[in-house]
Amino acid sequence: MDERAALDVLADRLPTAGDDCAVVDGQVLTTDMLHATTDFPEGTTRYTAGWRAIGASLSDVASMGAAATATVAVYGAPTFDEDDLLAFVDGAADVCDAVEAEYVGGDLDSTDELTIVSTALGRTDDPVLRSGAEVGDAVCVTGTLGRSAAAFRLFERGDVEIANDLYQFLPRVAAGVALREHATAMMDSSDGLARSLHQLAEASGCGFAVESPLPIDPSVDDVATDDADRLELGAFFGEDFELVCTMPESNLSRAREEVPCELTRIGTVTESGVTLDGDPLPDRGWTH
Amino acid sequence: MDERAALDVLADRLPTAGDDCAVVDGQVLTTDMLHATTDFPEGTTRYTAGWRAIGASLSDVASMGAAATATVAVYGAPTFDEDDLLAFVDGAADVCDAVEAEYVGGDLDSTDELTIVSTALGRTDDPVLRSGAEVGDAVCVTGTLGRSAAAFRLFERGDVEIANDLYQFLPRVAAGVALREHATAMMDSSDGLARSLHQLAEASGCGFAVESPLPIDPSVDDVATDDADRLELGAFFGEDFELVCTMPESNLSRAREEVPCELTRIGTVTESGVTLDGDPLPDRGWTH
Repeated sequence: MDERAALDVLADRLPTAGDDCAVVDGQVLTTDMLHATTDFPEGTTRYTAGWRAIGASLSDVASMGAAATATVAVYGAPTFDEDDLLAFVDGAADVCDAVEAEYVGGDLDSTDELTIVSTALGRTDDPVLRSGAEVGDAVCVTGTLGRSAAAFRLFERGDVEIANDLYQFLPRVAAGVALREHATAMMDSSDGLARSLHQLAEASGCGFAVESPLPIDPSVDDVATDDADRLELGAFFGEDFELVCTMPESNLSRAREEVPCELTRIGTVTESGVTLDGDPLPDRGWTH
Repeated sequence: MDERAALDVLADRLPTAGDDCAVVDGQVLTTDMLHATTDFPEGTTRYTAGWRAIGASLSDVASMGAAATATVAVYGAPTFDEDDLLAFVDGAADVCDAVEAEYVGGDLDSTDELTIVSTALGRTDDPVLRSGAEVGDAVCVTGTLGRSAAAFRLFERGDVEIANDLYQFLPRVAAGVALREHATAMMDSSDGLARSLHQLAEASGCGFAVESPLPIDPSVDDVATDDADRLELGAFFGEDFELVCTMPESNLSRAREEVPCELTRIGTVTESGVTLDGDPLPDRGWTH
């Protein structure tokens, strides 16, 4: 059984799970494991690893439209080096500061490879779920897509300084809170735009007609080999941590005013099928 | 740098850490990683693993005197089997039911060995910390010591059924809540009674004069080879998840009435030094 099939098994058993966070008692709670081999390419600093691991969980909080409260992490490594540890904690604390949350600590453990488990807690009485998109709603995305994909390419090339910069993303907590009143459905784009749209479509029982141009990050243009590659990095690679949401057309202009980052309308909610410029958009992306 | 030294580095950097849970905004939050090789001997069922992993975090909540709210877990395994997964979730959900918390899900990941990261959330405006013990206070422990040690021996022998039973402990959440008004300092005995006393002594700037008999579990008598081995299993082995606390002598009888399990007075808070029947009690125990 692969991870997606296993998640389906769990979704049947745990009705509170299946969204980006579990919802409990006016709060949202999320936990996620990251590994060196899959999540931290060679050249990733410990500061970036701390920022990004905690940021990924803060992004899940954001995707529920919740304010972020606190985070903890388990830091697992083969050996403990003081500078590494303090850099990790600085990254974790700084990303929390950036979204007005608090990094409050966690646990250490010996593991064969760098393994970080981050957990974030948020607060909202009225979370935005993946279900709720209505036919005719506008489909929007925050910020730009493909920064992490570009970073991966740059890590491969050894351009680690700029790669580390791109790899430190601002979790869209403030945007999520602003979108809470407007959005009918929301999740983050951590598995890539394409897969996120398919997951939203499945949860909401709808389809999406998406139109280019997509808001692909300029950093992607610097590394993409051609247009197909550019789309691959922007729409399928994933690990982007932008918010993908739907809202009534009439909410769009107020949402744009209130969201403190770019909010691009990329299409419309339809009855069924996920398409880009009329062609089916494949359901593939980042597999954790 | 070993794990304890690394934790000291972090304690300096993170003033909210260092207790059994981090305290934030009227809540307590704790996260912990467990592995097959160190925490789940051969014969441990997935149900027991789920119960125990989540139970360990609930014990941390208990040790702050907090009511348990919700838990999540990352379940990492080399392969995903439906029966294993559901058994794990049943164990996690059942231990939550036993303490009136809610298991709300989590994440899956591929790992080389079974690896579980459990996180628990609790609620209290007035947490009991490790610091706060006063000279002359009574030192108490809930329940009995050495059940996990006995279980380890039984797993080694292949007596897995009774070992699994012993390995499923009731987190002392109700006891912790009852002790909140009475205790001056508290933590759990997950590293063993001896090490827990040393940690409480360090945090409170005091000592402990402990007197036998200690409340060692009858299951230990069935597996111990002699009196020294019995003390080893009862006071040093650890992984017990009882509460160790201090309180003014005058609170003791009311605390005993209100705590819904055995509460044994094992000694008195002193100026310095940790002794058992007058001899120094070594600072050793379970190393995670």
